[in-house]
Formats: sequence, C-alpha cells, structure tokens
Amino acid sequence: MDTDTEARSTQHEVVVIIGGGFGGLHVAKSLRRSSASIVLVDRRNYHLFQPLLYQVATAELEPANIAAPIREILHKQGNATVALGEVTSVDLENKLVQFDGGKIDYDYLVIASGLRQSYFGHDEFRAHAPGLKSIDDALEIRRRLLLAFEEAEWEADEQARRAKLTFVVVGGGPTGVELAGAIKDVASDILPTEFRNIRKDTAHVIIVDAGPRLVLAMPEDLGERARRVLEKMGVEIRQNVCVTDVTDGGVQIGDDFIAAENVFWAAGVQGQEWVKSLGVELDGCGRVFVGPDMAIPGHKNVFVVGDAAHAIDAKTGKPVPGLAQGAIQTGNFVAAIIRRELDGTNGRQRPAFHYHDKGSMAIIGRGNAIAAIGKRHFGGFFGWLTWCFVHVMFLVGFGNKLLVMADWFWNLIRRKRSARLITGDPEVHVKRLRA
Amino acid sequence: MDTDTEARSTQHEVVVIIGGGFGGLHVAKSLRRSSASIVLVDRRNYHLFQPLLYQVATAELEPANIAAPIREILHKQGNATVALGEVTSVDLENKLVQFDGGKIDYDYLVIASGLRQSYFGHDEFRAHAPGLKSIDDALEIRRRLLLAFEEAEWEADEQARRAKLTFVVVGGGPTGVELAGAIKDVASDILPTEFRNIRKDTAHVIIVDAGPRLVLAMPEDLGERARRVLEKMGVEIRQNVCVTDVTDGGVQIGDDFIAAENVFWAAGVQGQEWVKSLGVELDGCGRVFVGPDMAIPGHKNVFVVGDAAHAIDAKTGKPVPGLAQGAIQTGNFVAAIIRRELDGTNGRQRPAFHYHDKGSMAIIGRGNAIAAIGKRHFGGFFGWLTWCFVHVMFLVGFGNKLLVMADWFWNLIRRKRSARLITGDPEVHVKRLRA
Repeated sequence: MDTDTEARSTQHEVVVIIGGGFGGLHVAKSLRRSSASIVLVDRRNYHLFQPLLYQVATAELEPANIAAPIREILHKQGNATVALGEVTSVDLENKLVQFDGGKIDYDYLVIASGLRQSYFGHDEFRAHAPGLKSIDDALEIRRRLLLAFEEAEWEADEQARRAKLTFVVVGGGPTGVELAGAIKDVASDILPTEFRNIRKDTAHVIIVDAGPRLVLAMPEDLGERARRVLEKMGVEIRQNVCVTDVTDGGVQIGDDFIAAENVFWAAGVQGQEWVKSLGVELDGCGRVFVGPDMAIPGHKNVFVVGDAAHAIDAKTGKPVPGLAQGAIQTGNFVAAIIRRELDGTNGRQRPAFHYHDKGSMAIIGRGNAIAAIGKRHFGGFFGWLTWCFVHVMFLVGFGNKLLVMADWFWNLIRRKRSARLITGDPEVHVKRLRA
Repeated sequence: MDTDTEARSTQHEVVVIIGGGFGGLHVAKSLRRSSASIVLVDRRNYHLFQPLLYQVATAELEPANIAAPIREILHKQGNATVALGEVTSVDLENKLVQFDGGKIDYDYLVIASGLRQSYFGHDEFRAHAPGLKSIDDALEIRRRLLLAFEEAEWEADEQARRAKLTFVVVGGGPTGVELAGAIKDVASDILPTEFRNIRKDTAHVIIVDAGPRLVLAMPEDLGERARRVLEKMGVEIRQNVCVTDVTDGGVQIGDDFIAAENVFWAAGVQGQEWVKSLGVELDGCGRVFVGPDMAIPGHKNVFVVGDAAHAIDAKTGKPVPGLAQGAIQTGNFVAAIIRRELDGTNGRQRPAFHYHDKGSMAIIGRGNAIAAIGKRHFGGFFGWLTWCFVHVMFLVGFGNKLLVMADWFWNLIRRKRSARLITGDPEVHVKRLRA
C-alpha cells in the first residue's frame, strides 16, 4: 500500500497497530483525536472477549456473544482503517510491515499481537489436545465435548465408555480451572435429564498441572480454595506432574497413562511466529523485551503492548501480568506517548509504565468463583456474583447486548445451555451399541 | 443394538425415526403417550429451523438462535431415545437400520431424512458454490460473504475488485430470493459506514434462474412482485438461463461468463444417498414414492414424511409441498396411524393424507416480504410484519428465546448485524493493496 506517499503529502503520520485485542483496540481508540492516520491489522475480523471464551467451549455462549467486528467498533473513528491480514514479518530498518498479500509503511508501530498456545515443543500434541485461544479452538472443544457424551450413550464396552467420558485438562491456570469446572457443570446439567444410559457421576474430569498449586498467578489461599471447590465437585487434580505424551487414547504422565479420549490444552503460551523476524531480544516464551516506555530498546517508534511484551512495572519491579487489564493499561499508556509526540508536546522524557492492579478473578463451576481485589481475597457465591457483574457489565458496554446477556444469565440460572450444537462434520466413533 | 430382544420382552414395539427435522420430531412427539419405544436417529445433534438459515449466512443470527439439541426437545419424553449417527442403509426385508457403527431393528420405520443440495450431476461445482442446507453451509457462505468485502476494501485492481464484489445466487426459489435480498442488505448496512474504499452500490448481486419466473411455487403475481422489489434494490435477475460451469473465477451461462468470486447455490435438491439402498421406486429427485397413507407401497410399516416423500394430496391430486408445514402435517398424520395400530384400534382402513395449505411466504430484503395465505396475496411492509410475527412466534415457542428474539428484532431495525464473524481459517487473497 502506498500510504507512505499519501501520509507524507497530507502530513499525517501513520500508526500501524498489529492486533485488535484489548491492547491494540485501546491504542486505536486513544488516538481518535490525534492527527495520526491509523491502520489496524488483524488476521481476524473481530475483537474477542477472551475471558469468556471457555463458555463458548462449554456451550453457554455463542461466538457472536463474546466477539464484535473490529470494523464496527472503529467505524465512527474517521482516522482509523482496518485491514484483515496475517502479518508475516516486520522490517524495523525500513519501517515496513509485511503481511499476506501486501505491505504497509509506518511511522509508529504498535505490536499488540498477543500470545498463542504453546505445546512446549510438542506441536504433535495439538491434534489430540486442542487449546483455547480462538473461537475456532472453542468450537472444536465444544464439538469434542458434546460428541463424547453422544458416543458414550451408545458405547457398550465399559472400558471404552470410561475413556470417552474422561476429560483431561492440561494446565491449572485460570483457563484450566474454569474449563474443568465448566465441563463438570455440563455433565451435571445434561446427563441426568437427556441421556438414558450414562449417569452424571460417570463423567470424569482431571486437571493435570506441572506447578505446585492451582492458579499460581493468584494468591495462595485462593489457589487452595479453588482446589477444595473443584475436588468437592468431583474434579481430580494432579499437581507437580508433566505430560510426556498425548495420543488418541490418552495422556502419558511419566509412568502413568490416563485413558481419555478428550484432552484439552490450557498449559502454555508463546509469542507469534512472525515476532522472531524483528531480530530483537525475546524471552523464553517469545515475548519481546521492552523498556519502561514499552518501546523496544533502540527502536523508539516501535512499541509492544499487552502480553506480547515482556514488561516490568517501573514502580514495583514485578512483571506486568498477561491479563486484559495489562493490555488495556499498556495500550492507553503507549497511545498517550504517541499522541504527545505527534502534538510536539514531548519536551520532557517519556514516562515509565506502572501497572494498576484492579484485581483478578476466576470462576470455578456455577455459583462459585475466586477473586483477589486489592488486599481482599474472597470466593464462593459472592465471588461468583462479583464475577458475573464485572463480566456482564463489560460485555454489555462492549456490544450493547443487554438482552442477550439477560438471556445468558437466565439460562445460567435454569442450567440451560442454548448453544449445544455439534457443528463441523461429526464422525461418530462407537465401537459397540447398547440399548 | 439389541433393542429387538428388549423390546419384545417388555412388549414395546420399536419405532425408529430417521431424521430430527420438522417431520421426524412431530412423529416422535405425537407418539409420546403411545406404548411404543422410539429411537430417533440423526447425524446432527440438533433440530434446525431451516427457514431462517439464510439469516445465519448473512450474519443476522447465530446458529444456536435457530437450532436446538434434539435431546433437549425430547428429554421429558420417557419413551424416546436419541442416537447421533449417519444412516448408511435400510434393510426392509429384515427390518433393520444400519448406521455408522451399529444397527437397529424396528417394527415401524419412519423416514424423515429430508433432502440435500443437488448440483444436477455436477458435484464439482460444490467447492466453488456452497449450498444452504446446513449450519455449516450457512457459516461457509457467511465466511465468504464477509471475506469478499474485506478483500475488496484493499484490492487496487479495478477488475479484480469487481469480481470480489459480485455475488451470484444460483436459483430463484424462496431460498435464492431471500439470500440475494439479504446480501444486498448486508452491503447497504456495512459498506457505507465501516469501509473506507468501497461504496455500497459496488456490491453486485445477480440471481441466475433456470425457470421462467421467481418463486415458481408461489402465485404468479407474487413472483412478479418479488422481481420488482429485488430489481428496485439493485439485484440483477437472469431468468431462463442454465449454469453450465462454475469455477473459481465465476459462472458460465451458455456463452456468457459472469466474473464473480462469490457463487452460492440455491438451485436444486435431491434425496439422501442411503435412500437408494431401500430398493424401492424413487422419483427424479430421489424422493420415495408413497401411497395415500404415506407408507411405501408393499411395506405397510415403513413411512416417509416431509420432503423425503413424493406424496400426492388425496383430495386435490396435487403434490404435497416440501415446506415445514408439509413435514409437520405428514409427521402428525403418520404418528396417528401408528398410534392407532399400536392400540389395536385399527379396525377401519388407514386414512389418506390431505394437506391443509396454511400459506407460504418469503422475505425480500428488510421491510419487504411476499405472502400467500388462503386466497389472499400480499406483500410489502405488511407482508414483512406478518413474516416476522409468524417466524418470531415460532422460534419463541421452539426455544423460549424471547429475549434473543427481541434482540434480533432490535438489531434488525437498527441494521446491526451482531454475528459478523469470520470463523474458520480465513486466507485472504488480495492481489494488490490500495490505500
């Protein structure tokens, strides 16, 4: 694209943003009154409210309930254009973003491309153990989950049926904990009423975690609370163990083999592949090291926001957490720097980023959640209500979907799962049938 | 499955129903108080409200808004079990349904498997021209439709851009008419506000129809009315022409080639492949000829309902139309026969099926529809309101989704399309970029 010529001729500096997640969108929106010409590139046409993705996987929500087209979000912002495309590389020397089918010159670049699932070097696990990073991932997990019950209903062989009804969640972070609890909820909701041959307590959910306790990023007492609640729900938790192999039939944990036809991966993250093309220093997860101004050292006009960055809080010296809040705050911070520099009011030095911890929470089954807000740690039903309130309010603001949210809440209470559809071409594998 | 032994021992006769559409579900529900043991087999786990499928394709609705799990629909009916599976053949001699992975014996069989898309012997067209019979079809059309706008936005080559913005709908029946109008609506809704480089009037929609006029199944004046409305909306209509080839780049119509990157197929239907295994007489579309009692001649205990049947109205001598109403009425009719025979109150002969015409309607763009109810033909805004009322009421009854429907109606009025997500792995094909 020849934005370069155009931008110069009209005196607009071009800010290219890679990624339309929380970080990228907040950069774009914060620059709405600036003189910059903004191009936001994403390989998806929608912004995704990732914290609720596991509810798409467990058939409580439909994709459109937690996603909105980036074009729609930015349509009133005259200085922003949106391009659908996958970035393949960035040439820092020539200030050029290369993506499939074209290239864009930039004056400022903001990398907000997030992280993808990591299988710790074992990409061959992916086929047997889908992750939970995109809507397609969530629909794949939904498909496998619902299909497992359908197949188990008619499976005559006891052992095969047990494997079909065993769900292994690899990873004990917030995603793993939320997914495991939700799977147990699905089983309780639909098995007793809709199935004739399988009972609800036959669905076996196991969390396999390499760490010493659940939700390591949250305070220890809440991790302990999560464990208690999950175990009471019937979820088995295996701590301090590493998955050494995943096959069609199950998961190998050292010498132990768990026969399970359903394995879901919520264990690790890594940077996008193209980030390597930057030729700058990355951490072990492939995140880009940034300075206190969120720029790449030596490249003042290239920022990284959200969890694509390895950033250190300037005040506390702690890493900035890879949460929606981290992305929003770093996005707004970077936009403010760019705005000031475009206005020519950058007399003083760039500020250093400090993270305001607004708390974190995770849901553990219906009617229960853990939350750490400031110094207060709480959980149970009150935690759950807090969780619902925060998330529903956020979603309502995000797409005006008040009615849909009311419907969601209503379904939640009645234990209805309206999105229980197996899409894609289901191949049913039942070895033997029973009446 | 050894239902045979079980059924005999408990004196329950087994009614196997193939298909959970309108026909199959009505058979199952009408037999809820009978002594029969019912097994409903479908290769999908959901019942689909097909009349609104095109709205999933055009991003107005999400799949779960128009589909509900068959298990949920039947969960209170103790004498019904549901099996997910694809029927591969039926052995009429041995009263046996074979499906992937197993088999079921039956006393009564009801075939309610509907019709699938037909490419009139050119199955190679399918890859270039998806049909609209399933949720996966609808999501594929949605993906292509939205991707076309995304690609056109950045396509610098005038001719290539025109091909990206040309949408050919093959078939001028209700589905073709509704889809074409809705595509034009999508373009009017989102192009002017959300795109910077393409104008709304650049989206070119063409209906290619082999017949002499649109919606042949409806009265002639309504077909004429549909044509007028669509042409006023800017839809081009080509009547009496046959598609001879479909490629990546467009559609061949005799000597004429229309360059179009988006071709959607709404032209023909045919019976399911496995129906041939029955070894009975089929019509040209692969529908099963049935007697006035909807049974296959010579096989009193095998019925065909819905549009899988080639049935003649006993009173009027006209074919029973392939509409939801036809399926519902034949389903209830057949269930009544089975119920009576199971009760032993079948002294008199089986009745002959007569179709009660409750009318038909089709939507033509937002705020306009055509309807034939009894001798009354009408259209325009009043037709549209009638259409909305009938369909919304139906859906509300069908899943208690009053809030979702209210949201849908609200979005419709504000021209918001909440389901505008490109899922699956979008590969963007843009030859050149423009600013």
